[in-house]
Amino acid sequence: MSNADIFLGEVIGTAILILFGAGVCAAVTLHHSKARASGWIVITFGWGFGVLAGAYTSAPLSGGHLNPAVTLGVAVDTGEWSKVPLYIAAQMIGAVLGAVLAWLVYHAQFQANSDRENARPTLGIFATAPEVRNPLANLVTEIIATAALVLPVLALGRNAGIGIGPIPGAPAGIYGSGISILLVSLLVVGIGLSLGGPTGYAINPVRDLGPRLTRALLPIPSKGTSDWGYAWIPVAGPLVGGLLAGLVLNAAF
Amino acid sequence: MSNADIFLGEVIGTAILILFGAGVCAAVTLHHSKARASGWIVITFGWGFGVLAGAYTSAPLSGGHLNPAVTLGVAVDTGEWSKVPLYIAAQMIGAVLGAVLAWLVYHAQFQANSDRENARPTLGIFATAPEVRNPLANLVTEIIATAALVLPVLALGRNAGIGIGPIPGAPAGIYGSGISILLVSLLVVGIGLSLGGPTGYAINPVRDLGPRLTRALLPIPSKGTSDWGYAWIPVAGPLVGGLLAGLVLNAAF
Amino acid sequence: MSNADIFLGEVIGTAILILFGAGVCAAVTLHHSKARASGWIVITFGWGFGVLAGAYTSAPLSGGHLNPAVTLGVAVDTGEWSKVPLYIAAQMIGAVLGAVLAWLVYHAQFQANSDRENARPTLGIFATAPEVRNPLANLVTEIIATAALVLPVLALGRNAGIGIGPIPGAPAGIYGSGISILLVSLLVVGIGLSLGGPTGYAINPVRDLGPRLTRALLPIPSKGTSDWGYAWIPVAGPLVGGLLAGLVLNAAF
Amino acid sequence: MSNADIFLGEVIGTAILILFGAGVCAAVTLHHSKARASGWIVITFGWGFGVLAGAYTSAPLSGGHLNPAVTLGVAVDTGEWSKVPLYIAAQMIGAVLGAVLAWLVYHAQFQANSDRENARPTLGIFATAPEVRNPLANLVTEIIATAALVLPVLALGRNAGIGIGPIPGAPAGIYGSGISILLVSLLVVGIGLSLGGPTGYAINPVRDLGPRLTRALLPIPSKGTSDWGYAWIPVAGPLVGGLLAGLVLNAAF
Repeated sequence: MSNADIFLGEVIGTAILILFGAGVCAAVTLHHSKARASGWIVITFGWGFGVLAGAYTSAPLSGGHLNPAVTLGVAVDTGEWSKVPLYIAAQMIGAVLGAVLAWLVYHAQFQANSDRENARPTLGIFATAPEVRNPLANLVTEIIATAALVLPVLALGRNAGIGIGPIPGAPAGIYGSGISILLVSLLVVGIGLSLGGPTGYAINPVRDLGPRLTRALLPIPSKGTSDWGYAWIPVAGPLVGGLLAGLVLNAAF
Repeated sequence: MSNADIFLGEVIGTAILILFGAGVCAAVTLHHSKARASGWIVITFGWGFGVLAGAYTSAPLSGGHLNPAVTLGVAVDTGEWSKVPLYIAAQMIGAVLGAVLAWLVYHAQFQANSDRENARPTLGIFATAPEVRNPLANLVTEIIATAALVLPVLALGRNAGIGIGPIPGAPAGIYGSGISILLVSLLVVGIGLSLGGPTGYAINPVRDLGPRLTRALLPIPSKGTSDWGYAWIPVAGPLVGGLLAGLVLNAAF
Repeated sequence: MSNADIFLGEVIGTAILILFGAGVCAAVTLHHSKARASGWIVITFGWGFGVLAGAYTSAPLSGGHLNPAVTLGVAVDTGEWSKVPLYIAAQMIGAVLGAVLAWLVYHAQFQANSDRENARPTLGIFATAPEVRNPLANLVTEIIATAALVLPVLALGRNAGIGIGPIPGAPAGIYGSGISILLVSLLVVGIGLSLGGPTGYAINPVRDLGPRLTRALLPIPSKGTSDWGYAWIPVAGPLVGGLLAGLVLNAAF
Repeated sequence: MSNADIFLGEVIGTAILILFGAGVCAAVTLHHSKARASGWIVITFGWGFGVLAGAYTSAPLSGGHLNPAVTLGVAVDTGEWSKVPLYIAAQMIGAVLGAVLAWLVYHAQFQANSDRENARPTLGIFATAPEVRNPLANLVTEIIATAALVLPVLALGRNAGIGIGPIPGAPAGIYGSGISILLVSLLVVGIGLSLGGPTGYAINPVRDLGPRLTRALLPIPSKGTSDWGYAWIPVAGPLVGGLLAGLVLNAAF
């Protein structure tokens, strides 16, 4: 994979992921949406199928990481660190681009929202927020939830014997087949269902930081705070979780 | 693939897609339906599994496009434009046929609906409608949502290395395996969940125009307006989105 | 496949299907169930994953038909009619067995139900019933819904080029891979979501007749009518639908 | 597979399973959770995708049993009993570890819960409980539900002809491909939807006993009873069900 392919793949794939993810949060949150108040099952499948769409679109270019925590875990696993900054930079750019696209899709809804007396807060569409604000507890939640993502993702590479792991010579990085992309996207649904309750499961530093930054810069009416005081947790927690998963994998497999 | 196979495949496949899609909208909308008011998760999975059923039934005949936006994207990607009119004509005929079948399935419900004081409007069962009427914003929503469908669909063809893309010599066009059909159907579920809130996600010109026309002609009691003033948006938006996706694919991959 | 294998496979597979299907209807209907009133999405996925469990368990023995409408469609498609009576007899026995198992699983719930003032009617747990009683309309609904099942199921056999259809020499009959079983089970979810609203989608003669008969014979307290006047529709409709699907397949493919 | 690999695989895989399973129960039960009161569909998919994550992570190490009932069924099927104690011990340790991890993820929620006047009972997050307390009926429910899990799981090994069963020489034990892991995880969703209503579907001795014991030992505020009087049923029922499934398999296939 060339550097240009990696860059393009991660920008496009992460943009698709965040378009779907911020999109489903807007769909469920905002007035004048056909999906308004349709619940947690809609949120979690929306994010999961965003992973599905982003991962297989970017797989032939960059391997479809879409997440610095995954990139860190892969680096710990393989010992190859030289491309890590390129991956993370492209993921951050893609996350910003995806947040802009989601805002465009729901543009009329954002305008209509600010005209209402009972306008819905919009921060939760772009960024995560804890239900109980407790930095240590929130950090632990994000660390465990991210390790529960990255360890199974890395384990794909150990399953070549049953056709999940990378096919030798395939340009797909962590994915060895269409079924492995499906398994990872359903894994992300499962993490949302099971572990997303306390903090809204960032489990991906750019998923939170990129859209939070984008929202701060976009001309969204009556947008209120960006809650930058919390923003370090959904960055630090997933990075630690990804590293831990890589270390557990190397020790156990 | 012969012209007769393409025609039959797209008619049958699109009819199945619209039978499921208009069917699930009737199921959730009409009184005297066991699925009444069962929500957005039912709508989106109903449409997605309609894609699944229609696509794999038509795959051996026509490759299972079922959507002029996909056909346009494939044409931009491959440079072969000669069969585009045949595909689109067959898709339109299939969409009308599917809408008639859905009306037959829910015939007693349509009759019972018009007898009630609180009859439900029936336009939304056949055609899309925006939550906030704003032609530019609605058009942008349909363009982005369709590009988010067609770009990943076309990317299937770049994934031969991991067994998703077309197998050389297979008659299946864009699909290379059963798993690729499953991925696309779940992608459509995801687009509905995430990007369907503002306009009801036509993302397919014949999905809206065919059933809208069919409903105008069918003897449905107390049916009200067909809202033809909006009908150009779910045609133009998806066509632009499909073209854009083809161009992005050619530039990036 | 020997006659003994076919018999055992269809009995076991259909019993699993009806155990899951009648089970999920009991789960959603009865008081003192953790799934009470959990809605149409639960009903439809419960039946679909019953198909999944029953089909792949019986696939190596009998090919996993589990449904006389599928057996009829296969006979029209292949021209081999000699095993049809064996298949249907085994499916009917399996359906009765599955209904007994579902009754055992929910035995305490059936007892507790009859002790309540607001006891729930139990016919709908075992058999289908129309929302609007109109024999012709109900029959048309069942015919179209069943054809929408059997045509895609039979089309599996035309998809060998993309790895869905039967592998030559495999003992699996209509299924060529695990993914084809998954596609069919999600197809059944889709039929429920989209086409199940008017009649509760029997789409399988023994799915309705077997449990309806079993319920009439079981010592369920305060059970009320068996509605035998409707019972011919979920038998006749699916048989006609399966035949139609076989004829369309032979004409189109 | 070495004893060390089996031990590590079953500890890690079962820990992931219980992390997701106890996690989703906490998510739906506790106040201050984004998934609060999101219903049975969330519970059942959360557990199913926990199986998915745990099974494919542990498949290359131990074959991904994660359940003494599966281990017993495999032993009946294969006649190899020597590793059964090792499997079960590792599964029990993993279940305890998973319950601790789930408690850590929801730590702030458990604290906040006990501070409220309307605190939610926490036993149901860790252990199963019947809706109608009737030992014989509850036992029968668990036996049938577990047999409906283990028989299809074991049938995977009979499907080599269609690519589901174990590939010769693969280290994966019961799983022959990624699709077979997906089928089993959706089977578990289906069992929850259809058969989980009466008792909450333990269908796995360590899934109930491990977290019940962990909860008794953890410093969870205002936790109330552990209901040890019921605890033998979700152990005995699944063991009998797994044995029965193995016997049916050997008789029928």
